[in-house]
Amino acid sequence: MAKVLTKKEENYSQWYNDLVIKADLAENSAVRGCMVIKPYGYAIWEKMQSVLDKMFKDTGHYNAYFPLFIPKSFFSKEAAHVEGFAKECAIVTHYRLKNNPNGKGVVVDEDAKLEEELIVRPTSETIIWNTYKNWIQSYRDLPILANQWANVVRWEMRTRLFLRTAEFLWQEGHTAHETRDEAEKETKQMLNVYTDFAQNWMGVPIIQGVKTESEKFAGAIDTYTIEALMQDGKALQAGTSHFLGQNFAKAFDVKFASKEGKLDYVWATSWGVTTRLIGALVMAHSDNNGLVLPPKLAPIQVVIVPIYRGQEMQDQISETANKIKASLESKGISVKFDNRDTHKPGFKFAEYELKGVPVRIAIGPKDIENNTVEIARRDTLTKDTVSIEGIENVIPDLLDEIQNNIFNKALSFRNSMITKVDSFDEFKDVLNDKGGFVLAHWDGTKDTEDRIKGETKATIRCIPLDVEKEEGKCVYSGKPSKFRVLFAKAY
Amino acid sequence: MAKVLTKKEENYSQWYNDLVIKADLAENSAVRGCMVIKPYGYAIWEKMQSVLDKMFKDTGHYNAYFPLFIPKSFFSKEAAHVEGFAKECAIVTHYRLKNNPNGKGVVVDEDAKLEEELIVRPTSETIIWNTYKNWIQSYRDLPILANQWANVVRWEMRTRLFLRTAEFLWQEGHTAHETRDEAEKETKQMLNVYTDFAQNWMGVPIIQGVKTESEKFAGAIDTYTIEALMQDGKALQAGTSHFLGQNFAKAFDVKFASKEGKLDYVWATSWGVTTRLIGALVMAHSDNNGLVLPPKLAPIQVVIVPIYRGQEMQDQISETANKIKASLESKGISVKFDNRDTHKPGFKFAEYELKGVPVRIAIGPKDIENNTVEIARRDTLTKDTVSIEGIENVIPDLLDEIQNNIFNKALSFRNSMITKVDSFDEFKDVLNDKGGFVLAHWDGTKDTEDRIKGETKATIRCIPLDVEKEEGKCVYSGKPSKFRVLFAKAY
Repeated sequence: MAKVLTKKEENYSQWYNDLVIKADLAENSAVRGCMVIKPYGYAIWEKMQSVLDKMFKDTGHYNAYFPLFIPKSFFSKEAAHVEGFAKECAIVTHYRLKNNPNGKGVVVDEDAKLEEELIVRPTSETIIWNTYKNWIQSYRDLPILANQWANVVRWEMRTRLFLRTAEFLWQEGHTAHETRDEAEKETKQMLNVYTDFAQNWMGVPIIQGVKTESEKFAGAIDTYTIEALMQDGKALQAGTSHFLGQNFAKAFDVKFASKEGKLDYVWATSWGVTTRLIGALVMAHSDNNGLVLPPKLAPIQVVIVPIYRGQEMQDQISETANKIKASLESKGISVKFDNRDTHKPGFKFAEYELKGVPVRIAIGPKDIENNTVEIARRDTLTKDTVSIEGIENVIPDLLDEIQNNIFNKALSFRNSMITKVDSFDEFKDVLNDKGGFVLAHWDGTKDTEDRIKGETKATIRCIPLDVEKEEGKCVYSGKPSKFRVLFAKAY
Repeated sequence: MAKVLTKKEENYSQWYNDLVIKADLAENSAVRGCMVIKPYGYAIWEKMQSVLDKMFKDTGHYNAYFPLFIPKSFFSKEAAHVEGFAKECAIVTHYRLKNNPNGKGVVVDEDAKLEEELIVRPTSETIIWNTYKNWIQSYRDLPILANQWANVVRWEMRTRLFLRTAEFLWQEGHTAHETRDEAEKETKQMLNVYTDFAQNWMGVPIIQGVKTESEKFAGAIDTYTIEALMQDGKALQAGTSHFLGQNFAKAFDVKFASKEGKLDYVWATSWGVTTRLIGALVMAHSDNNGLVLPPKLAPIQVVIVPIYRGQEMQDQISETANKIKASLESKGISVKFDNRDTHKPGFKFAEYELKGVPVRIAIGPKDIENNTVEIARRDTLTKDTVSIEGIENVIPDLLDEIQNNIFNKALSFRNSMITKVDSFDEFKDVLNDKGGFVLAHWDGTKDTEDRIKGETKATIRCIPLDVEKEEGKCVYSGKPSKFRVLFAKAY
């Protein structure tokens, strides 16, 4: 097999890039910072979308669609929002091209200049709250529980496939409520939805927490986050849910009449996950042979590879393979029977390993004789010969076992990579030698947070929601602290 | 009920606008020409997407995602394409805002000017064929059968919700093939998929045909179309499938090595439908009471409205309603039980008529006594009292009957609106007095086509695929013609 990956122990970053490209997930496009999501990568995103969309609908949400463009002036309406957002963004200034009068090609028609520039949405709070203003008069119009599946653009200078791209795909929920309490409950509910998805579908264990003032969303009161750990010991923010208070309602003057006839500003939340999750999925589980996909999100869950010589044997094996395929499909399992005669079994084995197909079934002449098949697990790379009888029950159980094993392996690793430290020397040593999450006391000031980041590149990933109260001293300043916070270097 | 529609006989255009707004399908946004698709309208789009996506996958296609932005120079590479496209479009020229040094708000940072402007995609042939260049080396890499669900932008000066907006949602299939024959078959296959969808799901009868040189897609060899008729007698292009020949392969230098080792340019197709279909759905079936939705695409297929006084009666009716709901849902029918006590039954009746819910079930005290319910059909506005026994079979049959009735009604109307004419006076009379499709002889020249359009606003919608050979004379020029073509005024 020609597609050799860089070993992850040698160069994790290069391993990741190789893998994304060689497993046909995505590639860089001709447009700086924008990726092409290839069919196999997009199939994973479709699986993610369908699971998340159902979770959103099961919790009472519905979808809608808002404009791609946002008038420039909208960003200035919420003071914190404009500081944190909308600086590095794509700006539309003209609406017409014309033939180049001096030669070939087309040029911008300077007569077609917009009065007010339009920003390609980096996030949609402003245009959505400007819309909600007309949707909300009284408490009867609340709650609004809308979600949008869309593309957004943030002009990033240093991009990496899935992890940081100028354009990416995401969903953004934007809800409106009568009370602070209801909005806070919504914020936490969606954090739990994301947690469920990350752990039980992606097989990625996460830590729930709240961001510090410096790390929170521009315009939020509180930003809740789920933080995952990659195999190189770096953290990755996998989803955020923001309690926005009345900030956007005030910026866009969105008031409602309560049951008692009192006018008040509406309470808001927003929450989102992105195609970055595909990057997290790759980095959390994969190995030097390629992707390791959790069965619940794998586009192909089982591949059947025939091993034969001669037409007669091929027909016999095909008949058996098709029977197995049908019996598994009837159980809702996605199966591919790769009967291409242009590639050898060894080539196919390597290809499906690279693509992370959870279970491979190989059928050869001896199997036909013995009424068996060879089953190979992608997660453990182990093989087993089993009887064809009852295989329609064996495979679903095996897929469950693989799903659990992938999660448990990631969980053991993650747990082994949370280190409590009590001095700044120890803090630096752990970060440099071991990596992972560092639990340390912090004095609660932005100044200390900035200095630690400056000296170590570690940021406060979150204040964990299940944090225990514990008297201590800030590892950096020595000032008193009441609980530990979670530091890490992060993607 | 406060939401009164303009009558369609009085002002069809205003009736359409009223209906789209009042049925909560969509509204204009703060951004010129861009719409907000509201939850109820988006739910229809989701149904359309899910049906079409399955049809695409059943015919061997898969999804992928390509960049929102296209470098300006790409449009100039295919000569016809740049003439027809990419003139009226959104142009990104800068990538950063900065705080306004002279006061409040933000301004474009002139230091952040792009070297080459980026165009927000009006269609993706150019960026996709630039990508395919790297995907295709030999016949083994073919066919490519990719589809993209995305937003696109065409800067329209006169916009109408769903029918013509600056930004709209669509799918665009882009396939690559070894042979001309295979690409032509693909083009026709997708035209048939669109036909199936329009007729059997939307309930909209269509005429399949091929566009004239002036009306075809910029860069295509042949554009196939499905043409529908709206209730005001105007035509609407509901979907197109383009045979692109080797035009884009030549423009982007995409060659493949055949089995025999010969290098040749790749053959291409593209095909798409848009959120415009929602406009077609509205205009094809609805009436002065509101939307009439075909059951197969209705977000809510059955609504149950209770009619009661007092708590005890309410409880009894709710129990019955919930039983009916569960039994229908077990058959895959989407049911809403509207038990709001803030609105009266009459208000609810009007609301669900406006929203086009195909079947309404009302349950009152007498129904509880008699073990019956009242069933109202949205398409015919007729009512019937039926026994609750067996209702789980009555309703699915009724939904099928409504689906068929909606299609047949539209078909009778459409057939009554195809008129053969043999002189230009007759041509103009039919267009002005009756409207609809006009079948007339045409001499095959662009000049005649342009003159007819100039004098009557009618365009050649298509040369029908099932056209009969018939010697005749062009209604305009009197020159000889071998078959009739289909004219109409169109959206």
